[in-house]
Amino acid sequence: MKVVVTGGAGFLGFKLSQALLATGGSPEPIRELICIDQTNPAEPVPGVTYVQADICAPGAFDRLIDGDTTSIFHLAAVVSSQAEADFDLGMKVNLDATRALLEHCRKLDAPPRFIFASSVAAFGVAPPIVDDDTPVRPLNSYGVEKVIGEYLVGEYARRGFIDGRCLRLPTIVIRPGKPNKAASSFASSILRETLQGKKTVCPVAEDLAIWIQSPRAVIANLIHGHDLPGDAWEEGLRVLNLPGITVTVAEMVEGLERAGGDPGLISWERDGAIEAIVGSWPRGMNTPRAGKLGFKADENIDAIISVFLEDELEKH
Amino acid sequence: MKVVVTGGAGFLGFKLSQALLATGGSPEPIRELICIDQTNPAEPVPGVTYVQADICAPGAFDRLIDGDTTSIFHLAAVVSSQAEADFDLGMKVNLDATRALLEHCRKLDAPPRFIFASSVAAFGVAPPIVDDDTPVRPLNSYGVEKVIGEYLVGEYARRGFIDGRCLRLPTIVIRPGKPNKAASSFASSILRETLQGKKTVCPVAEDLAIWIQSPRAVIANLIHGHDLPGDAWEEGLRVLNLPGITVTVAEMVEGLERAGGDPGLISWERDGAIEAIVGSWPRGMNTPRAGKLGFKADENIDAIISVFLEDELEKH
Repeated sequence: MKVVVTGGAGFLGFKLSQALLATGGSPEPIRELICIDQTNPAEPVPGVTYVQADICAPGAFDRLIDGDTTSIFHLAAVVSSQAEADFDLGMKVNLDATRALLEHCRKLDAPPRFIFASSVAAFGVAPPIVDDDTPVRPLNSYGVEKVIGEYLVGEYARRGFIDGRCLRLPTIVIRPGKPNKAASSFASSILRETLQGKKTVCPVAEDLAIWIQSPRAVIANLIHGHDLPGDAWEEGLRVLNLPGITVTVAEMVEGLERAGGDPGLISWERDGAIEAIVGSWPRGMNTPRAGKLGFKADENIDAIISVFLEDELEKH
Repeated sequence: MKVVVTGGAGFLGFKLSQALLATGGSPEPIRELICIDQTNPAEPVPGVTYVQADICAPGAFDRLIDGDTTSIFHLAAVVSSQAEADFDLGMKVNLDATRALLEHCRKLDAPPRFIFASSVAAFGVAPPIVDDDTPVRPLNSYGVEKVIGEYLVGEYARRGFIDGRCLRLPTIVIRPGKPNKAASSFASSILRETLQGKKTVCPVAEDLAIWIQSPRAVIANLIHGHDLPGDAWEEGLRVLNLPGITVTVAEMVEGLERAGGDPGLISWERDGAIEAIVGSWPRGMNTPRAGKLGFKADENIDAIISVFLEDELEKH
């Protein structure tokens, strides 16, 4: 297999590359793994070819994605708060570049597997607990762009241009690295920073509930979404809500205490803009469709914290 | 009001223009009515300014849609069979031109009311009877393009760039004029042609059920969708399934007989491609949301045939 990962220099790309190379690849062995990103990776994974490129530039995928390319993980995106603040940038990266990538794939000899990272942000007006068939009524630009991407991937798959699969990722907790412009960035910060003895700000109320998944589980699910055969997917439905767990901010703080962290490092400073975006996402989901296909959730917040300690803090 | 209708030289544009000028306009009187289309109208409506233009051309809306424009009816589209046969053309007209129109509107001083003609074709994989909240899983390019258009209209409305309203039109029966490349064209032809003593072909089985609305009811609903105040619409939901009636092809033929037409003029020649597209659309809908907002359906097939005889045949 030749695998291409967009947004591949970020933390998800890093972990995905590591995991893909560790498993060796399915259904065929991985022969080449290319990560495309606008920046160079902070920590390159040995064996990966890194290409610095703007995916919005014309011809960005020429010579990188060719007839040998069997698999594409399309992770690159402008995140939620940034897409909300800069409408044109969000549309350009999240919509136009996705479409350009699909058009590029359409011209290949054989349709590659195409894994599109969609998001829980697709849901805005929704019941507190979302079901597999809850209609998507997003209330932020990022969510709209992801939903349109899902429909494009579905249509290009129906046409046989790609073998597409869209996964709506829960909020990823605990993200390693630094806070970013995702509205949900705090959900990682309040654990990640405090577990390392650093101060942080929580911009939402303690009773806010979010739908989360650890980086390790997300990566396993992305790879599982890739490895499933095309006929495992229902007709006209190349998109799935991934399983996850519901936690309130208060429960995250309790988990932090159990892990020996100090909640006193958190300043509580509510931010209406962040509350509006994150508060519009569902607090939980019933995901029988994904369960039946073998996608997995984490056990609980303690397990998620353990994964972080093991994968991020103990390795250094 | 200054009103602009895209696809305005077609039969819907003709009837919409007539009706708008007859009612005079709401909430303000109509000062100017511009119909944009790639062709000149077969039958111009007095008082309408017709502009021949390709809506896909850069700057197509310059000087036509300006700060004075209060209302846009976006009817122009590549129809279902044609969009299925020519993917690029469908994407260009149904998606790119819609987005260019929305971008143009965004730059105006005040957000115009924007009525987007969507379609029952949004539904592909769906229960036989669709509800207001049935998720849309289209199985043809036309349907996908309309759904993406709905999400764009919704997002531009949420951002305050337009005051958008999307209406999913049932199959329109009886369309006047000639057969076109819509997969549903037969549904009008089997009545329209036979009522005028002409032979026609029916490409589907007698028991196929379709969800229909007369041109007169569609026009009334488009104008109602325009006239409703912005706050009549639910948050994050600028799209509605319009009411209609379910009829089988056999019931249409019975109606034809009751109206004095000769069913012997119909040749039954099944066409798999047309059956695949039309058969994937829902056979009926429950539409309480539209009912509550005051949208209306026709009474039955006999009433629909009467409307045709009255509006199309008796006037000549």
